[in-house]
Amino acid sequence: MSSKLTPKGVVAFLTDFGLMDHYVGVMKGRILAELLGEANPIFIDITHEIPPQDIRKGALKLKFAYPYFPQGTIFLVIVDPGVGTERKAIVIVTENYFFVGPNNGVFTFPAKEAQVLECFEIDLEKIMRPPFSSTFHGRDLFAPAVAQLLRRIPVEIWSKPLSNEALTLLSFPEPKRTASGYSLSIWDIDRFGNLITNFSKIMAKNHFKVLVNGQEVRRVNTYGEGGDGEILALFSSEGLLEIAIRNSSAANSLKDPQIEIIFE
Amino acid sequence: MSSKLTPKGVVAFLTDFGLMDHYVGVMKGRILAELLGEANPIFIDITHEIPPQDIRKGALKLKFAYPYFPQGTIFLVIVDPGVGTERKAIVIVTENYFFVGPNNGVFTFPAKEAQVLECFEIDLEKIMRPPFSSTFHGRDLFAPAVAQLLRRIPVEIWSKPLSNEALTLLSFPEPKRTASGYSLSIWDIDRFGNLITNFSKIMAKNHFKVLVNGQEVRRVNTYGEGGDGEILALFSSEGLLEIAIRNSSAANSLKDPQIEIIFE
Amino acid sequence: MSSKLTPKGVVAFLTDFGLMDHYVGVMKGRILAELLGEANPIFIDITHEIPPQDIRKGALKLKFAYPYFPQGTIFLVIVDPGVGTERKAIVIVTENYFFVGPNNGVFTFPAKEAQVLECFEIDLEKIMRPPFSSTFHGRDLFAPAVAQLLRRIPVEIWSKPLSNEALTLLSFPEPKRTASGYSLSIWDIDRFGNLITNFSKIMAKNHFKVLVNGQEVRRVNTYGEGGDGEILALFSSEGLLEIAIRNSSAANSLKDPQIEIIFE
Repeated sequence: MSSKLTPKGVVAFLTDFGLMDHYVGVMKGRILAELLGEANPIFIDITHEIPPQDIRKGALKLKFAYPYFPQGTIFLVIVDPGVGTERKAIVIVTENYFFVGPNNGVFTFPAKEAQVLECFEIDLEKIMRPPFSSTFHGRDLFAPAVAQLLRRIPVEIWSKPLSNEALTLLSFPEPKRTASGYSLSIWDIDRFGNLITNFSKIMAKNHFKVLVNGQEVRRVNTYGEGGDGEILALFSSEGLLEIAIRNSSAANSLKDPQIEIIFE
Repeated sequence: MSSKLTPKGVVAFLTDFGLMDHYVGVMKGRILAELLGEANPIFIDITHEIPPQDIRKGALKLKFAYPYFPQGTIFLVIVDPGVGTERKAIVIVTENYFFVGPNNGVFTFPAKEAQVLECFEIDLEKIMRPPFSSTFHGRDLFAPAVAQLLRRIPVEIWSKPLSNEALTLLSFPEPKRTASGYSLSIWDIDRFGNLITNFSKIMAKNHFKVLVNGQEVRRVNTYGEGGDGEILALFSSEGLLEIAIRNSSAANSLKDPQIEIIFE
Repeated sequence: MSSKLTPKGVVAFLTDFGLMDHYVGVMKGRILAELLGEANPIFIDITHEIPPQDIRKGALKLKFAYPYFPQGTIFLVIVDPGVGTERKAIVIVTENYFFVGPNNGVFTFPAKEAQVLECFEIDLEKIMRPPFSSTFHGRDLFAPAVAQLLRRIPVEIWSKPLSNEALTLLSFPEPKRTASGYSLSIWDIDRFGNLITNFSKIMAKNHFKVLVNGQEVRRVNTYGEGGDGEILALFSSEGLLEIAIRNSSAANSLKDPQIEIIFE
């Protein structure tokens, strides 16, 4: 590595491949095959259930996940509708992590939040493996790239330098200022049906109310405080305001709700 | 450890987190981050598809799974609607295993079936990690606790003793005695649509008939013995009477069936 | 081993067990329990979402996956509607791999494509573990067999030789010759809704057209080349002709389509 960061053997996967096909397993198999027993990686699945081609969702899930992994973790993130086209295959090295995947915005959050030390464009001629598919770079391109990292072969040998400015960044809507506070958007809905908004704890003042469809809802710290069917507002584990119903799904009860913050 | 049992590096996960979100991956990432490379755990997922907040289902799946794991396995079981409330976060040490999770009944079966050597209440002040969320103790509390076990830091240092009597136990319905045998309940339905009842092999006498909705069904040893669409009764791999249809789903064909045992 | 191939510790799983139950986890737990810490396996899940009892789908997914794994990988493949019946439990040793599972056709492709060195029938008396279920051989029979391989205990000790001719092989439809080319079948549909046909790159001549329901569709190399809603034909990552729609599901748009190849 040009930087002092070295991979420690942890590879974290985040894709839209799903679990019904062979794609995830094959990708891991190929990493192992490339390693020839030289390194013993630990594979962690963040999720493979990003909706097909939903780059924004992939970017958000990565934001929520990466800071908790050990230093040196390699994140392989593949939500890649442009697979096989001109979009670049990249490696981003930050102070703590390696990110490998397509340059289409999935790395928006680490690129903005973390200190990007170096970026690289993977050299297809050096890394692509047969059968050189145009549709499964997870197997033929990205898996071998991850294996190079695990083997501690310097990125410079198999990649070209890329300017930080060449990184594709997506914009995510910030809360909209209103006369009395903010109007929020929903960034994510989790499996429990919790609605995760774009209002961060950091933006909160001491006193504020939360309105859902014009009605004030109770602010709590835990789901357990809620009454039956009561709509609750609380800060999610990611520090974002979330709308929830105890033991139920807010997403099912509230279709496309208006969520507002009123400062007092 | 106060007991002679030591963790061997295997962590088995059972949660209602699902696989579409980042929760499972983040929890594992945090365990690895806490370990700082000191130990090389083997992570096994029992399931993460417990229906949201379904503590009873979590308890049953744990019952069906834990006895087959190697001695020293740490079971991290999180189905935790009371996360962040007064419910205790506990560690149970049995002769063979460690169980980590909320004290809400998910550990009913090992607590009843296995020899409980010691119980502990995790000391939040010593174990909670930032951002100290009230909604994701899997990441901020339980993952660090599992890491302490893996690092073989004695539980006493980061937990308070807890009396066995303080363990929350759920009651599961036993078969109801009838004039001629038993009336059964369905405890679980698996992905194949097999209906798993509460009638255990141990309760069986030499001769008995099985009635489904008043009709006798054939008792077999394997699914393959069944005719097309034929309702079968057999003992499941967990030693419980199960109602099945070969290459089909009994759960789809039979809605809320009455299942009876008649001793001959 | 009688052959020179030795397991390297990688076990790849392919089953119809699904992920909502405890079956997959228990099977892995049992392998670890059998090993008693002697070996440190790497477990890779190919998929567990084969539709229940769909041996053909299991065979296809194995075909698509196995060639990318490292030499010495043990494939444990369980789609096993005949569990507990007379169907044999087998081990196939090829030049590069070990295959363990039921002799019902799931191993059709490696048996045809790879060089089969030896076949064995697992000796139930030597390998079955309590509770000796008739319905969960994954746990009581196949997991212990895999553990024997991982421990490098010669197969001959716990299995009987089996003639290659005794291997059950399924037939998969080849493209049907027509006056001007081929009429194709769909072999697989993946999570993206891509329709994967039985027409292999190897059968392609220099110039050919693809018709879907009588209309010519554009042949491309990547999904990204497609227009909105445009039906595309391209070779899949497995070298099979696939019908796809960019950022959409061909399977949803086309019900039971006629797919034809016309040589020019």
